[in-house]
Parts: sequence; C-alpha cells; structure tokens
Amino acid sequence: MTSSFQESLSEESQFYVEILENMYHSNHIVNIPSGEKVSLSKSYLWLVVRGVIKIQTLTLDGELSILGLVSRDEVFGQPLSISNPYEAYALGNCDLLPISLIEIEQNPTLSISIFNALRKTYQQTEMLLSIKAIRGMEDRIKSLFLFLAERYGRDYKDGIVIDIRLTHQEIANLLTTTRVTVTRIMSGLKESKFLILERSKYVLKKHSTI
Amino acid sequence: MTSSFQESLSEESQFYVEILENMYHSNHIVNIPSGEKVSLSKSYLWLVVRGVIKIQTLTLDGELSILGLVSRDEVFGQPLSISNPYEAYALGNCDLLPISLIEIEQNPTLSISIFNALRKTYQQTEMLLSIKAIRGMEDRIKSLFLFLAERYGRDYKDGIVIDIRLTHQEIANLLTTTRVTVTRIMSGLKESKFLILERSKYVLKKHSTI
Repeated sequence: MTSSFQESLSEESQFYVEILENMYHSNHIVNIPSGEKVSLSKSYLWLVVRGVIKIQTLTLDGELSILGLVSRDEVFGQPLSISNPYEAYALGNCDLLPISLIEIEQNPTLSISIFNALRKTYQQTEMLLSIKAIRGMEDRIKSLFLFLAERYGRDYKDGIVIDIRLTHQEIANLLTTTRVTVTRIMSGLKESKFLILERSKYVLKKHSTI
Repeated sequence: MTSSFQESLSEESQFYVEILENMYHSNHIVNIPSGEKVSLSKSYLWLVVRGVIKIQTLTLDGELSILGLVSRDEVFGQPLSISNPYEAYALGNCDLLPISLIEIEQNPTLSISIFNALRKTYQQTEMLLSIKAIRGMEDRIKSLFLFLAERYGRDYKDGIVIDIRLTHQEIANLLTTTRVTVTRIMSGLKESKFLILERSKYVLKKHSTI
C-alpha cells in the first residue's frame, strides 16, 4: 500500500502545480482559519495551497462521516460531489485558490493542471476506501496512521511526526466506528509504542507496519 | 443522496463524451468479455464506453475489497491509483478506449473531456465511501441498491431493474462484510419486497427508501 504513494507525487505533477500557482497572484488566495467552514459553489473548485481540508457528510443513519482529507495540490468542491450534505472545514490554517469550471474549460494548461490535482484527490479517496475495507478495527486505525505518516509525516527524532491533528471523534468518523472504540484502541497503540503523543501531535515509530 | 445524482450527468459532460468518442475510430475500442481481467499500464487510462468495470484490491488482512464500479463515460487505470494490488475486471461485456497520459497532456480538448470523466469516477467513489459510512448493515445494503438503481436502473413494470449483476460475495467485498451476512440480509429484503429477483436481475420497488 505504501511504496507507490511517493511515486505518484512525481516531478511532472509538481510542474503543473507550479503553473497553477503562478497563474494566480497571491492576493487571490483565500485564507481559512482552523476549524472554519469553507463556502462552496456549483461553479468552482478549490485548490489547496496549504493545510488540510476535511470533507464531511451525514449518513442516512444521521452519523457524521469524513469523506476525504484534501491537502496541498489537491482539489475539492461541490462540482466533484454528489454527496448531500457536502461540507468542508479547515483542519488547521489553510490557504485555498478558487478555480472556476469555466476557466478550466477555457484554459488548456489549467485543465491539465486541475486534471492532475483531481488525480491526487482521487488517489487519497480510493486509499480511504481501501483502509475502510479492513475488518479489524485495530488494523484499520494502524493503517490510517501509516497512511497519514506517509502523506503528512516528517522525520522527527527516531520517528515520524504527523502534521495533522485529528480528534478521536474525527478518526471514528473517518473509519466508521465510535469514539469510544477509537479511544480504547489508541490507548493500546500508545502502550505498545506504535504511536506516541508529543506536544499534541502523533509520532509514529519509524518502520512501523501492521 | 439520490436527488443530485441525475443532475451531475449534465448535457455539458455528455458533450465532452461525444468529443472523446469521435476522436477515436471504433476500431480502437477494446472489447473485454464478462469476467475477464483488464490489462493495466502506468502510461494510460481506460475510458468505459459500455459496461461496468469492477476495481479491486486486497486489504492488509487479505480480504478482497471492491474499490469502484466504473461505468460509461468514466475512467480508471493505474495512473489514478496508489492501491497495490489494483486489478480491474469486466462485470458483463465491456467496451473500453485506451487513452495515454501523453495524449491527455498534449491535447487540450481531450484533457477537459478526461477531467470530466474523472469527476464522474470520483463522484461514484465518494458515494461508495459514503455508503460504507452507514453503520447498520441492512441500511448499508439498501443504500447500495438505491445507488445502483439510480446509476444502472431502468423502468420495468412497477419497479426499477438493475442492469448489473453482483454476487453476494461481491456485495460483501463492496461493503466490508461477509457473504453470509449479505445472504441473510438479502433474504429479508426479498421477503419484505424491497427487492425481487427476476431472470437473475434485481428489481427494486419504485419509490423505495431507507
């Protein structure tokens, strides 16, 4: 699951991201403070320049469900979704670029860049589906942290610190379980030193596997 | 969940699909017979012209998991995925168009069309995630059938016949449960006339809801 992820962040797609960012002056970038809701429209997408956006919906049984964690160089927005409700919140401070569908259709360079950004969004959504397919909840939570470490991790002492804060409730909403179950399993993962908490950030032991 | 789905199949995206299909002569279309595996490559995507493709992977606990049901005007392929393994099989007879990444980057009209095709693929994947977020397995199975009816259904007597055949094992692999559980719940859904089986196709009662 993990080896191919880095490959997908190819130099080629980096090139298109630079095109995207150069096309816009920095004063078009919208800052969304931590915890705030992002306003959405049927006529434009948001490109994440900095930070992580949490996409959520309500299930038919009334539970909150997180459908995606969209980060740098990825897109989200109403035009991508058929979920109802479809809501986006900033997890930490975020910078976003609005990109209208009309612009995408009129500007070939932009359309290729956005195609690549959507490929990345799709990949993380597919990976969440794959993690949700794991039956055992402890393995599901471990897989989530391995995935987060790969996406948002950076070396820190003899571990990998994860630069995204998720509450136990958010982990439960991501993995279709209860907060109580997450808290119980997370305690075990801390005891076994799979994860430690340092300055309210999770640190994963290096070379951890399931 | 259901009302917005039809809207997304806009006339506009239909226009781009026609562009795509006209760009290729029909002799480039590859026919994949029912049940056969589709060959994949890092350098091209497949556009589905006819039929439904099942995308599957193995979870860390060794279970088969279905990550997507990709149908007409949608794309799939190795370049979209970071799942490993990533395998594609035809559910029924399929016609597919290969589209190379190089072509997409060189041809603006193609890139917009493929962007729209990927939007549709993304929408169905997000919807599967949303269905998997439902805790109760009976409601999860009902939601799956409402979704399938909307995507693959056509009017038939006083119901909606679903033109895609899924075994109980495939439903289990889609929803992260066991075949035994699916069989038990499906028997109940047939008894309550939520679903009937006619000539080995599922027929959903019209105006069914959860």
